[in-house]
Amino acid sequence: MTSRPPESPERLGEFELIAKLFAPLARNFPGSFALADDVALLEPASGREIVLKTDSVIEGVHFLRGDPAARVAQKALRRALSDLAAKSAEPSVYLLALALPSWPDMAWLEAFARGLAGDQAEFGIVLAGGETNATPGPVTISVTMMGSIPKGALIRRNGARHGDLVFVTGTIGDSGGGLTLLRGQSDDRTDSYLARRYLVPEPRMAFGQKLRGIANAAIDVSDGLTADLGHVADASRVRIEIDAARVPLSEELRQLWPGADGVARAATAGDDYEIAFIAPEAKRDSILDAAHTASTRVTEIGRVVAGEGVALVDGNGDEIPVARRGYTHF
Amino acid sequence: MTSRPPESPERLGEFELIAKLFAPLARNFPGSFALADDVALLEPASGREIVLKTDSVIEGVHFLRGDPAARVAQKALRRALSDLAAKSAEPSVYLLALALPSWPDMAWLEAFARGLAGDQAEFGIVLAGGETNATPGPVTISVTMMGSIPKGALIRRNGARHGDLVFVTGTIGDSGGGLTLLRGQSDDRTDSYLARRYLVPEPRMAFGQKLRGIANAAIDVSDGLTADLGHVADASRVRIEIDAARVPLSEELRQLWPGADGVARAATAGDDYEIAFIAPEAKRDSILDAAHTASTRVTEIGRVVAGEGVALVDGNGDEIPVARRGYTHF
Repeated sequence: MTSRPPESPERLGEFELIAKLFAPLARNFPGSFALADDVALLEPASGREIVLKTDSVIEGVHFLRGDPAARVAQKALRRALSDLAAKSAEPSVYLLALALPSWPDMAWLEAFARGLAGDQAEFGIVLAGGETNATPGPVTISVTMMGSIPKGALIRRNGARHGDLVFVTGTIGDSGGGLTLLRGQSDDRTDSYLARRYLVPEPRMAFGQKLRGIANAAIDVSDGLTADLGHVADASRVRIEIDAARVPLSEELRQLWPGADGVARAATAGDDYEIAFIAPEAKRDSILDAAHTASTRVTEIGRVVAGEGVALVDGNGDEIPVARRGYTHF
Repeated sequence: MTSRPPESPERLGEFELIAKLFAPLARNFPGSFALADDVALLEPASGREIVLKTDSVIEGVHFLRGDPAARVAQKALRRALSDLAAKSAEPSVYLLALALPSWPDMAWLEAFARGLAGDQAEFGIVLAGGETNATPGPVTISVTMMGSIPKGALIRRNGARHGDLVFVTGTIGDSGGGLTLLRGQSDDRTDSYLARRYLVPEPRMAFGQKLRGIANAAIDVSDGLTADLGHVADASRVRIEIDAARVPLSEELRQLWPGADGVARAATAGDDYEIAFIAPEAKRDSILDAAHTASTRVTEIGRVVAGEGVALVDGNGDEIPVARRGYTHF
């Protein structure tokens, strides 16, 4: 037997306000019907395929009640955007499912909507539709991000080949270091470089779209560098060896986590939202060009060999033991 | 500052099992990549548009912990399917976002997956992708249902015209009556007709697809007959009058809720998942044919007039006061 949501007329009025709050976010996409119909309509351009990713952020898991609502909105959108970036897809519209307990007030919801609006402008995306439900539990925000790609151009996990090289954008481990800093502090100092890297993912959209015709396989680094390259190795039925000394670390992270142990920690920390990718050696120059054009740091960090699994290796070629961790995204 | 999910290695192993449990559900859709990549890929057929709907069911709101898991899966899928049915769209694939606390054991998850599998067979849909997250709160299941429709064929809310007739499929209020029965009982007798109508929505897929070229506007009855026809009236800038005496009620519901008051209660109860639609009088014969072909009961219940809002009117043309209720789906 099932019960109805704990709702009052006031609450219903609030939900109508929410729809009004979000309608401006849908203004530039005719298929949203201004959020005033039951479904959204997407007309794909000829010769292109639709790329889909669903991803959720949950209060108490991915953010806390005291976090600025605009940042929660950014996190919700950018996690899914990062997946599209790594697959070389161009994002277009998204659907939003909001489960709301009673604590978020209109000020919070307005700030949340402003966060969505800011990222819509930054990434060229538009709200296409969604729904709001009451929940007795934590705020739960599910985003279904949609994008497109020329037919056949999607970069999969399973294309890595023996002899290919391994690259990664940006620096690794900053987010994990930022989380450590934030956990160690009683005040709310969130303005350090590492903390910001944890709090606001920066998906590599511009660079990702340059990987077409270059990368044989790619993945966004969310579970951790070794875990995610492990997924690529598994799907491609190859072995990936990462040179520990070449894993790009920021100066800030080197100070926080010095030495070889710091590299192992960085490579398993996760939430990097960088792109790890595999390409033939012949593409090295194209990669450097793409990195330059997209103003994105790219580092060669290893190679694809016969065998299976992933390894972080030291200067002697010996394996540094690391834990594989991560959630399951299916 | 933000914390990681409360997870243990056992929990991670369980999430891998979940992916394995769900992978067979994605077998017949190449764009799912067998749930072994980061995104799903949808290639729309030429001349068709993609129809999208996101909808969530939440433990403690839409179902209870003791409910059979297969039925929870049905409810999650069918609520979104019903929206597509009312818009005359054909469902194809769906994405699933699962937020799971620690209580659902593997037996529950297996039964949930079996429920999904059964509805996949019944409605011709396939799992395209999804994700699993740990949550400190209730089980929260977000479905993004995708379908398609010939370009330009979507039936909107806003096409009702002065002089059109109003129709509805099936019977109204059964689900609300079923909920009343279930709430009034201490044992778990869920096998009555009304209870089943509450517990397992039956979206009108076959009939919905026959509404193309017939209906000027349509909506699935989820908030309640008057509330949902109110949405149509608002979007179409017309007034909709429903003859209370013509609202189709099952014999079972007439016994539970007798008299004129019973009609008002049925018309506001919600969760019917029937299709209310508006069509020109000239289409009456086509509607009867479509109803016959799809083996679906269809009843003419009112008319579209100038003005605004929705009214339930008695035999004297006087308005019967009803409350408008409902969630906000945007």
